[in-house]
Amino acid sequence: MDRRPIGIFDSGVGGLTVVKEIREHLPGEPLVYFGDTARVPYGIKSGETIRRYAAEDVHFLLRFDPKLIVVACNTASAAALDDVRSRVDLPVVGVIEPGARAAAEATEREVVGVIGTETTVASGAYERAITALKPAARVISRACPLFVPMVEEGRVNGRVARLVAAEYLGGLPPLGIDTLVLGCTHYPPLESVIAEALGPSIRIVDSARETALEVKRVVEEGGLAAGEAEPGIDFFATDNPERFKRLAAVFLGATPCSVTLVEPEDFFAEAP
Amino acid sequence: MDRRPIGIFDSGVGGLTVVKEIREHLPGEPLVYFGDTARVPYGIKSGETIRRYAAEDVHFLLRFDPKLIVVACNTASAAALDDVRSRVDLPVVGVIEPGARAAAEATEREVVGVIGTETTVASGAYERAITALKPAARVISRACPLFVPMVEEGRVNGRVARLVAAEYLGGLPPLGIDTLVLGCTHYPPLESVIAEALGPSIRIVDSARETALEVKRVVEEGGLAAGEAEPGIDFFATDNPERFKRLAAVFLGATPCSVTLVEPEDFFAEAP
Repeated sequence: MDRRPIGIFDSGVGGLTVVKEIREHLPGEPLVYFGDTARVPYGIKSGETIRRYAAEDVHFLLRFDPKLIVVACNTASAAALDDVRSRVDLPVVGVIEPGARAAAEATEREVVGVIGTETTVASGAYERAITALKPAARVISRACPLFVPMVEEGRVNGRVARLVAAEYLGGLPPLGIDTLVLGCTHYPPLESVIAEALGPSIRIVDSARETALEVKRVVEEGGLAAGEAEPGIDFFATDNPERFKRLAAVFLGATPCSVTLVEPEDFFAEAP
Repeated sequence: MDRRPIGIFDSGVGGLTVVKEIREHLPGEPLVYFGDTARVPYGIKSGETIRRYAAEDVHFLLRFDPKLIVVACNTASAAALDDVRSRVDLPVVGVIEPGARAAAEATEREVVGVIGTETTVASGAYERAITALKPAARVISRACPLFVPMVEEGRVNGRVARLVAAEYLGGLPPLGIDTLVLGCTHYPPLESVIAEALGPSIRIVDSARETALEVKRVVEEGGLAAGEAEPGIDFFATDNPERFKRLAAVFLGATPCSVTLVEPEDFFAEAP
């Protein structure tokens, strides 16, 4: 038994979809979640800036002596995963590899769609991860910049959501994809609208769910399970904890009792 | 003649609509524009964080010895204008007061609509500024969170833009408004879609244009005009200058030849 928590970070609240899935698949683990809401979104920032932010986020989580770090942000996983791995002597799970693996296993026609933020798509990280497993696979990526603000506004169904999904995704099935990766942790609340835009024959891979299954595998194979009866989750945010709480209802399906504000002087002053 | 530049800052690229209007109304002035693209958007952050960011942004501009500071960001004007004024011994023009004054003058029925980011609307800054001038006026505010990412994606017309505008704004004319303030510097590229959603009888006040007119008044009354034949504009951004250049085409109507990246260690290390 290893009672140390699993440390999870994201640029904001999107990573709470990963928390929700970890809770479901590993119900006995204490969790610490850090959302960098003062600097959200990472998805339009440069790779260099994202690596600096990720290093600072991990530095914060280390004070809780975690047994495993989850980079619960596609943008940070695409831009900073190797950098994070080089900084800590702990297992580090990102959200790209698990989703890519599930997509490579699911595709029969070997044509996979990937949707995400501008930076994730521009990074080509999913393409590399999928073709590393299935060299003949073709990966077609689309940035969907309106999806994040839509979800944060609670617009996960209705006319606007359906029209935007149709505009972003309508061109993908004619290109032959049989599998679509939700390559942003903000997207799972839109899953039904996305499925409607794609039609019934396309399989959707939720990177948040696949990441939780990967965390489960690492915990179980490494003998790291805590197995607590009622493990806690501690939430930290660098800004606006009230907004964090409100949005947690969308992503986590529950409102945290408390979210601790990390003061910038506390957080940035000791950055690596 | 005063050859010092006008210093302008914004959380990102939206303030370029103010630059465009200043260029038009004061064509002889050298300008320095600072966009804090590493920390954009300010509109979902807390007042305390925004005041800290604004102080750092002004601190950067001061190295160019400006004769006037323009807070070309509604969110920062709402949350940090008094704070900025207390820090510098220069004229400081925000974007709220000029738009509020134009709206107070324009409204006949004394019912004014204001649209902006979540933080601007929650601050009540326009309501206070308008009722200070017209105490009987009623101000009806609406946050339009999708407008900023829509404009940044270049979606300033088309079905999505029209549907989103109709959903946000369709309820305002029945409430009796005769004037609508575009209370976010990102919104001017959407003006025709917004006008269509409101119908022909509503007057639209563009806070970017009104701010430029206010800057002109301060410059002329203070004897601060430079009156140069071909004054330059220097652009600085804290992240992703390539994206800045690309978006400048939308907001400024021109692509800057060069945008200088301000390195974080350079910028934050010397913060006040």
